Amino acid sequence: MRSAASAPGKVILFGEHAVVYGKPAVAVAINRRTTVTLEDSGEMRIDIPSLGISFTGESGTPAGGILDYIMRALELYHDGSPLRVRVDMEVPAGSGLGSSAALTVALIGALDAYHGREAGPDDTASRAHRVELDVQGAASPLDTAVSTYGGLIYLAPDRTVRRLSADLRDSLVISSTHRSGNTAEMVASVRERYERLPEVMSMIMDATEMITRTACRFILENNLEPLGELMNINHGLLDAMGVSTPELSMMVHEARAAGAAGAKITGAGGGGSIVAFCPGTAGSVAEALGRKWNTLRAEFSSEGVLHL
Amino acid sequence: MRSAASAPGKVILFGEHAVVYGKPAVAVAINRRTTVTLEDSGEMRIDIPSLGISFTGESGTPAGGILDYIMRALELYHDGSPLRVRVDMEVPAGSGLGSSAALTVALIGALDAYHGREAGPDDTASRAHRVELDVQGAASPLDTAVSTYGGLIYLAPDRTVRRLSADLRDSLVISSTHRSGNTAEMVASVRERYERLPEVMSMIMDATEMITRTACRFILENNLEPLGELMNINHGLLDAMGVSTPELSMMVHEARAAGAAGAKITGAGGGGSIVAFCPGTAGSVAEALGRKWNTLRAEFSSEGVLHL
Repeated sequence: MRSAASAPGKVILFGEHAVVYGKPAVAVAINRRTTVTLEDSGEMRIDIPSLGISFTGESGTPAGGILDYIMRALELYHDGSPLRVRVDMEVPAGSGLGSSAALTVALIGALDAYHGREAGPDDTASRAHRVELDVQGAASPLDTAVSTYGGLIYLAPDRTVRRLSADLRDSLVISSTHRSGNTAEMVASVRERYERLPEVMSMIMDATEMITRTACRFILENNLEPLGELMNINHGLLDAMGVSTPELSMMVHEARAAGAAGAKITGAGGGGSIVAFCPGTAGSVAEALGRKWNTLRAEFSSEGVLHL
Repeated sequence: MRSAASAPGKVILFGEHAVVYGKPAVAVAINRRTTVTLEDSGEMRIDIPSLGISFTGESGTPAGGILDYIMRALELYHDGSPLRVRVDMEVPAGSGLGSSAALTVALIGALDAYHGREAGPDDTASRAHRVELDVQGAASPLDTAVSTYGGLIYLAPDRTVRRLSADLRDSLVISSTHRSGNTAEMVASVRERYERLPEVMSMIMDATEMITRTACRFILENNLEPLGELMNINHGLLDAMGVSTPELSMMVHEARAAGAAGAKITGAGGGGSIVAFCPGTAGSVAEALGRKWNTLRAEFSSEGVLHL
């Protein structure tokens, strides 16, 4: 028996960090996918070639990082029979591009197929969210929704997800610093700033919410032109939250100078990645950023989880 | 007949740009002063050695830049008799450090002494503000109040100025980019962003107001420790307004890395200066920034206009 599924990574366009305070956020799927292949095997075995991970049952219980997501998904949605799990990641871990959600969604898709379970995308999204919750303690359903449905997702303040139709093709460039951001640490550092200065920080979260809502309104009107400026403003608010770094600031300025309509930190910051919105200029922005940084021209993708 | 007066430059600690939208701001006088010396002369003559300006009546009516302030003050507060006006500036023009207000206040102080007019600081401040209004079209009374009274000044939303007592000695470092910021241009560019995205930008101005008010509260409690973090947050909001530049971002990050409790753009941005709050670390921050930038360790000064 063999099954496989893949799921896309994502970039948050608006509202990271604010999302932790009940605010809305917008993210899109990108054409970098994680593929999980399951095969019957005489022993439990997990291979993630891009991370140099090759784990067998004899190594003891794996723990830490991305393996936690695999182990928890197997506990919840597999019967314990020995499997070979192979993970091929085009979404680099720690880049803020939703690598854990892409992996989790792809694994759940593959497990459902392996067990012949009928599962629509809503089931997949909710199972994957449960795994993220169990592993992280707290997690918004945004990443797993994007990896499941693809396209552009709006996470409302009531934590429901809405799929918006938009076409952001040929316009996104992602550039990553050489240092991974640690999401849990960055969330904690924003929390500390919030606790020290609640009146100020709550207004910054409110302003972020207004940016996200305004962006949604423009997206619904199919008027994408103002998104760049809104991303620039959102970046300033992320800087105000304390999650920018010298490298991220430099990348954002370089992207704008190279012709991006807007650029911002995407994800938790403190390292990780920026996303630039570059309708008509994606090639030159990617080239300019690519001289110094790990840069990928990420295509917006409407494909969510796919059974292979 | 000879008279002379000097007045200090300033740095805005909180609230620049938001002040244009009726929000409060906080600024402090620094120990960089502009001195104006007036002497009877056979002809009208203005010398500003630091700017290479040497103007005599025969050159026609001077116009542009800082000379406009001198000509307007002479029109309003002098009787037209020929004078030699000598201006010695420790406050570089275009640096965002209030060079025009320092010059105007010092000149008005010197003119009042020249004419034997009894003038308290409130008269000086209001005359200087009138000159700035006439020259700039719009101007807050903040800069001229700081140059007149010295110390730390809070400009309230009703445009009255309040002198707060605080001692920020040994803690301010100012670093200037090689490019002057153009205040009028930067104010106009924020205005355009505001008009494009009024709901978002009004919330950013409101958040800036909350920062300024919170800072004031801490200053009144003589608790200066949180000011650095508030400056960092204010910097992010200035970035969100669109007035940061790659150089300003870099300087702010370098100041923080060198031990500043906080650092931000001061003044209009788009070039100009940053101010870093560095209690206990001013020496090392000034040294680190001084390797690449024009940096001065500016002492907080409680001295306002002085008749010499």
